[in-house]
Amino acid sequence: MWLSKKFKYVSLEEVHQLIKNIARESKETISVFQAYNRVLAENIISDINLPPNDVSHVDGYAVKAEDTLQASISNPVLLKIVNLNKEHRDKIDIKETAYVSTGHTLPIGANAVIPVESVKIKGDFIEIYHHMQPYENVTRTGSDVKKGDIIFRAGHILRAQDIKLLIDMKKWHIKCFKKPVVALISTGSELTRQIEETDKKFDSSKIMLSILIKENGGIPLDMGLVPDDINMIKELLKKGLKKADILVTIGGASLGEKDYVWEAINSLDTPELIIRGIKVQPGRVTSLSVINNKPIVALPGHIQSTLAGFYLVLLPLIHLMIGLPEPYCLKLKAKMSQRMVVKEFLPFKRIRFVKIIKRDNDIISEPIIGDSSLTSVTVKADGFIIIPENKEIIEQNEKVDVYLLKGLYSY
Amino acid sequence: MWLSKKFKYVSLEEVHQLIKNIARESKETISVFQAYNRVLAENIISDINLPPNDVSHVDGYAVKAEDTLQASISNPVLLKIVNLNKEHRDKIDIKETAYVSTGHTLPIGANAVIPVESVKIKGDFIEIYHHMQPYENVTRTGSDVKKGDIIFRAGHILRAQDIKLLIDMKKWHIKCFKKPVVALISTGSELTRQIEETDKKFDSSKIMLSILIKENGGIPLDMGLVPDDINMIKELLKKGLKKADILVTIGGASLGEKDYVWEAINSLDTPELIIRGIKVQPGRVTSLSVINNKPIVALPGHIQSTLAGFYLVLLPLIHLMIGLPEPYCLKLKAKMSQRMVVKEFLPFKRIRFVKIIKRDNDIISEPIIGDSSLTSVTVKADGFIIIPENKEIIEQNEKVDVYLLKGLYSY
Repeated sequence: MWLSKKFKYVSLEEVHQLIKNIARESKETISVFQAYNRVLAENIISDINLPPNDVSHVDGYAVKAEDTLQASISNPVLLKIVNLNKEHRDKIDIKETAYVSTGHTLPIGANAVIPVESVKIKGDFIEIYHHMQPYENVTRTGSDVKKGDIIFRAGHILRAQDIKLLIDMKKWHIKCFKKPVVALISTGSELTRQIEETDKKFDSSKIMLSILIKENGGIPLDMGLVPDDINMIKELLKKGLKKADILVTIGGASLGEKDYVWEAINSLDTPELIIRGIKVQPGRVTSLSVINNKPIVALPGHIQSTLAGFYLVLLPLIHLMIGLPEPYCLKLKAKMSQRMVVKEFLPFKRIRFVKIIKRDNDIISEPIIGDSSLTSVTVKADGFIIIPENKEIIEQNEKVDVYLLKGLYSY
Repeated sequence: MWLSKKFKYVSLEEVHQLIKNIARESKETISVFQAYNRVLAENIISDINLPPNDVSHVDGYAVKAEDTLQASISNPVLLKIVNLNKEHRDKIDIKETAYVSTGHTLPIGANAVIPVESVKIKGDFIEIYHHMQPYENVTRTGSDVKKGDIIFRAGHILRAQDIKLLIDMKKWHIKCFKKPVVALISTGSELTRQIEETDKKFDSSKIMLSILIKENGGIPLDMGLVPDDINMIKELLKKGLKKADILVTIGGASLGEKDYVWEAINSLDTPELIIRGIKVQPGRVTSLSVINNKPIVALPGHIQSTLAGFYLVLLPLIHLMIGLPEPYCLKLKAKMSQRMVVKEFLPFKRIRFVKIIKRDNDIISEPIIGDSSLTSVTVKADGFIIIPENKEIIEQNEKVDVYLLKGLYSY
């Protein structure tokens, strides 16, 4: 067989460079009401001014500022109240005033609004006790958004307030990057999806990955599970390739007798790219192949390795495909709680899961010890650190970047 | 009328204390498969050990460590391969070995596993070149989760890896706090939900709030919008109170002629609690009433005020109702980009929206200038700062806490 299962570990930097070449974005036009958390695929230029006219910032009385010049507590100015609606008028004249609600357009002739709390009403008149500046309590036309301005740029992730502004700008349809369909195949004869099959292991890693993919802008697609049988694996891979933008396998990716995944993937067609292993531990087994322009990521089965493969290979791939300029991960600077010696896999980057502890004014990163198969380590963790190649020792209080797992809301 | 519309501003600390008294949690049992992002309402104690037996950490050959004591490169030890399945055996004897896949139980008699990469197969034998420690490459029973241990505590937000562990522990059903239904009413005759009605403003604030409520663990319920008519407002409030755990109004909450919301709310029944205004600006109009045990939050209409009311009153209320021990908000320490003088509303806390900028190794907080009605300010923002009472000046480079808005993924 031409293709060896043997690893030829590739550095993470090289992996990320290769991923940039293979990640294909595509775009679609969607309703603004569906656009929350989507990534813009176009710059948004406003066709209108917001507000469209000068509007009142408060509930109060619209005035001509120049009418109030002489006003003081001892010498209040009286202005006649005009009911614009009743009198079918749209303007005020000298020494007149009209009530306006917050956000409403000023009558013609007015250039300031005095808040309702600051005046006294005397019959048909208001009494004013201080003089108003021109445009006091007025939100000028175009002060929020100017016609012709670029308001958002492609690559921006749309948040709640962004959706509001798009609606206010009457951008009912916008172009966003398509979410990639990420099809997931679990491998292993020991797995089941029936909770009654108590002699088998429930396929829980796929559920975890589905959540992570959804959180990060992909559409997870469960292709089911397959026993350690090379032909059955091939069949499911073929099905997956038809439906997926990215195909992901879990488990069976190493050198064991029953690890057929890598062989099965690369027997489907001539791969356009092969990364057989990454210089990261845990996670080194993570492999990547591209067939018919579709990336296939083989993730290892031990949870810490699965997560390393997810965060360092699959996540950047998804993020590039949804149009983010750079793969992102929320980072936090923290001090190591203790000296840490990491002698294994020195030529590799090493991942260690850590807990974040707030102590006085410091943010502390405390490593959680436990082998890569232990889920409890990741459950105790708030994030992970990446120890550079050839670094054996992290000193106590040394500053590290903690890549945050979702769910750390407060620190 | 006994109830004045006049404000009696309450400090934020007092508001939070009062909110703690009125927030009512309730619990429900749900499927673990629906439990992502939910808050646990019970401690989870494991009924089983994980792994249930000693299992292999690698693909390799299970051995008795003591058989390998003499092994070296120059003096390899030979062990006979036993095919357990074929021979219907479940144990190995002295000088025997058997293949095990990652995650599988060791045969009786074995106490270490040598990786497949580290041996040579010679016919029916393997050759071993170094001696194995007892339990080398073995994940001991209970090393991930011990029977009887508390694995999660009530109040924990369930993440992807937590769901995996719950499944592995066969916790198919778990008790979580119920998500509160947050019913939303927009007020204002100028509003519409028809994009064709171009002379009106689209009800975009409600859409923004619905997203924020959903992001933060509540279930938004759109009750529609109502013009500035006190009886119609009352009717919609009554309907909302029947369906909601928390009722929220947007706009019409201040002192204007057409601001009927506060009067309408408190004419429904005798309120059990009243907070008429908070000592926070923007946002000071935010008011809270409790009727029939149900909190009603009146939010102001200007976007920055709406958001201040959301983050400082509604969000803590939702978080307490979903069982979080303390309301949370992701904070980040940053340095002010410039000197900032804030003279207005000195006895109040003042909110300012800021952008986060990474410069060299510093995280910089740059204020965004613009009045509270401007959505563009919040669109440019990554977070906000809270300026304490009576503080007039923030110096350049002074450290501030930035409360992060969602969407800042990388800094």
